Amino acid sequence: MSKSACGRAEGSCGDREPMKERQMPSSIIEKLKQEVGAGKVITNSQLLNDRRHDYWVLSQLEDLQDRGAPRPACIVQPTETKDVISVVNACRETSTPLVPFGLGSGVCGGIKVDPATVLLDMSSMNRVLRIDVDNLLATFEAGLRGADAEAALAKRGLMLGHYPQSMDVSSVGGWVATRSAGQFSTAYGNIEDILLGLEVVLPNGKVLETRLTPRASTGPDLRQLFLGSEGTLGVITSVTFSVRWQPEKRDYSVYYLPNMDAGFDLQRAIIQSGWTPPVMRQYDTSEAWRLFPDQAKGDGALLLLVHEGPAARVETEKAACAALAAEAHGEAGPVAAGEKWMAERNEVPTFESFLKKGVILDTIEIAATWDRIRPIYRDVVASLSEVENILNASAHSSHAYRSGINLYFTFAARPDDSKDMARTYEECWRRTLEATAANGGGISHHHGIGRLRRDWMRRELGATGVELLRSIKHALDPTNFMNPGVLIPNE
Amino acid sequence: MSKSACGRAEGSCGDREPMKERQMPSSIIEKLKQEVGAGKVITNSQLLNDRRHDYWVLSQLEDLQDRGAPRPACIVQPTETKDVISVVNACRETSTPLVPFGLGSGVCGGIKVDPATVLLDMSSMNRVLRIDVDNLLATFEAGLRGADAEAALAKRGLMLGHYPQSMDVSSVGGWVATRSAGQFSTAYGNIEDILLGLEVVLPNGKVLETRLTPRASTGPDLRQLFLGSEGTLGVITSVTFSVRWQPEKRDYSVYYLPNMDAGFDLQRAIIQSGWTPPVMRQYDTSEAWRLFPDQAKGDGALLLLVHEGPAARVETEKAACAALAAEAHGEAGPVAAGEKWMAERNEVPTFESFLKKGVILDTIEIAATWDRIRPIYRDVVASLSEVENILNASAHSSHAYRSGINLYFTFAARPDDSKDMARTYEECWRRTLEATAANGGGISHHHGIGRLRRDWMRRELGATGVELLRSIKHALDPTNFMNPGVLIPNE
Repeated sequence: MSKSACGRAEGSCGDREPMKERQMPSSIIEKLKQEVGAGKVITNSQLLNDRRHDYWVLSQLEDLQDRGAPRPACIVQPTETKDVISVVNACRETSTPLVPFGLGSGVCGGIKVDPATVLLDMSSMNRVLRIDVDNLLATFEAGLRGADAEAALAKRGLMLGHYPQSMDVSSVGGWVATRSAGQFSTAYGNIEDILLGLEVVLPNGKVLETRLTPRASTGPDLRQLFLGSEGTLGVITSVTFSVRWQPEKRDYSVYYLPNMDAGFDLQRAIIQSGWTPPVMRQYDTSEAWRLFPDQAKGDGALLLLVHEGPAARVETEKAACAALAAEAHGEAGPVAAGEKWMAERNEVPTFESFLKKGVILDTIEIAATWDRIRPIYRDVVASLSEVENILNASAHSSHAYRSGINLYFTFAARPDDSKDMARTYEECWRRTLEATAANGGGISHHHGIGRLRRDWMRRELGATGVELLRSIKHALDPTNFMNPGVLIPNE
Repeated sequence: MSKSACGRAEGSCGDREPMKERQMPSSIIEKLKQEVGAGKVITNSQLLNDRRHDYWVLSQLEDLQDRGAPRPACIVQPTETKDVISVVNACRETSTPLVPFGLGSGVCGGIKVDPATVLLDMSSMNRVLRIDVDNLLATFEAGLRGADAEAALAKRGLMLGHYPQSMDVSSVGGWVATRSAGQFSTAYGNIEDILLGLEVVLPNGKVLETRLTPRASTGPDLRQLFLGSEGTLGVITSVTFSVRWQPEKRDYSVYYLPNMDAGFDLQRAIIQSGWTPPVMRQYDTSEAWRLFPDQAKGDGALLLLVHEGPAARVETEKAACAALAAEAHGEAGPVAAGEKWMAERNEVPTFESFLKKGVILDTIEIAATWDRIRPIYRDVVASLSEVENILNASAHSSHAYRSGINLYFTFAARPDDSKDMARTYEECWRRTLEATAANGGGISHHHGIGRLRRDWMRRELGATGVELLRSIKHALDPTNFMNPGVLIPNE
């Protein structure tokens, strides 16, 4: 019997089995209304539909195919940490599943509810709490939209340095909960490098507020428990980021490389020589022609660099990268490709527009050391290409490190029968993660686990790693009421 | 009643109360000999004396004052992970305290034993396992001496980028267990930025080996549990570091600043402008004259920068720093001060040489955001200066961040009666940490907690943070046999 993407029987990926018709006792809703005020407890509005799931394409497909997920019992919209404590306590005391919701941009099924679930809509906690230009720190409530955080900083000449493509539709707390990566990570780091402090309501209702210190050797870093916790270990209520002044200068470099391997070699040479252009993106032939039709050329790879910083260093870095590119037989391309990426980088068509045409598609980001990324690229594209009715199997890289790099695969397929879309989806995921794991790669660079990758966690962490993660979950949330069903595979 | 450094009744800092005369049943030693081989179980040699404690000055004082700590029941010197598993299992099954020992360079009382304790001497696992020039990764057994790791890399033109002053006397596993910082951290990061993977024998005897991936979003980062765990959550058996090519060029900048505040302003301007000289060290007047008698000048602060990297960037960075220094009324000083620091940076007199003269002394490293570091410097030096018979109260900074900086205080005192040395020591620690915490600073930048700072952890993490740390400890080590008594305050 063939296996689904998540390693279980095909067609059963994540929690797609019909929900048991659990119902929440109305007494709990009444209790929540008493605790936080009736106005913050929503039981009857369009919002209950909108918050049933995140942006996972499979949840969207279910909606379109009239197998849509159920609504939660209620949505609570807290306006202060005290409200969150009340909701956490009420849910824990009544063994009610509690699902924290940021802005719902996750793509791995981290959010699913049923009629016995309370959904905690953090988008109602969206204030800018403090911008501190002395220490370059900014404290935001967790539900603040990324683009709004950036806009608040921009008024002071500051910037986050963290720019996920979801910038306009994701929350700052969601970035932490999912271990987000930004497009400018090569110089500015990922969310774990930018997060300086946070406030979390733990499953026991107590509030952990970490100290705002630049660095500490005071035992294990407790912030790290919540980076990637996906709502399972607490509710993040505010975050403090270590921000930056906007750069003095920005510039671009563009290179044509003979093939993907040559591009990997060049990126490796750049970063291992100590240069860190904030953005390094390498597109395979298919993506180069699709995304840069006016700039693509031949059948090689296209590499875009964005340089930022003090003007003198930008010039120095650009010249150094040009010298390394020449050694790697790279040919300079038009800077317009970089400018085009910069201008259009967050414009993506909706999944829905494809689904309605019978096309199922997704992106899958993985990471590996330099020596492993070549066979992974080759094997994943080859394996995806064997899928029946596949339309596209391509990749680009977008985050480079001294030790390796990520790859961002895109697949699209149009099954003859639209009823096969979910099965095709699962096959594409399974093939991609199988070829990645078989070559020693890591199964997620930055989108996280949710339900989609959950059962691959055994391959990723090993049995001991999963057991360790489960023991931590049990220590913090012994009754498993915090976002149950995501991240940690069942025993 | 006055309180000791650790907040308890004076004279009771750490675990200085007389040890209960516990004895280990000889059956356990026999079992260990059977499991790992008699040759690896040491019960009768000078080594039992040498491994009684780490380099904590108070333990050394006890030795000199004939109140020396007891010896362990035995020392096991494992040569492979399998041996470590056997020892962990034997100790857990018999509720025998197990104390992992690296090279004993810790200065916070992380190592103390009694006759019922098994000491696991990791210095016998000291092989270079793999140097991978493609991915710039190096895997070492945990007990390898830092300087030996660097020497192995140097043969390939590589470097660690992690240079604690203890380089010659500390182990690579110890760096991870204590959340070490290196002198070149401003560009190369601290140990948490350099550690890519590790192997740990958990208290339950299972082996966690983390995946070697440049970055992952696969739940909380499990490596972080062991960074700073100080032997309480498992035994680190090997580490993989993300290393670097040796830099093309090194250069120095030296500036005289009117006072410490002006120096902090300049360092802040440099790092917040996006420059990262690997080393930035700022000495107050007292330390400048003591350490750089031929280069010190006037009554201000002395700032040393070390620049490293591609030659073109070193030049650019040096020029940019010079421009910022001029704005800050910094006066260029002789590069010889930087060269002197580089040449002599790891030469420090032994504690013993002072103790024998009746002088008690120590260094205390703390960290804080930029706005808080000024009052901390002022208040700590003022408070230490009030201690009876104080000889020295001074500081330098050595690690800078966008959000703040560390300070490294040095105190020395010669009590009239040498019996008061421990009490004076505790008073100096208490005053330093009190003034730091009162101003919102963090109590340890990189030396860790051990027994010395243990009871300050409530101030540092808050009650909820300590409770969370304790719950994790309990989840991993429910019987508390792994290095009991360090890191986590008693309930």
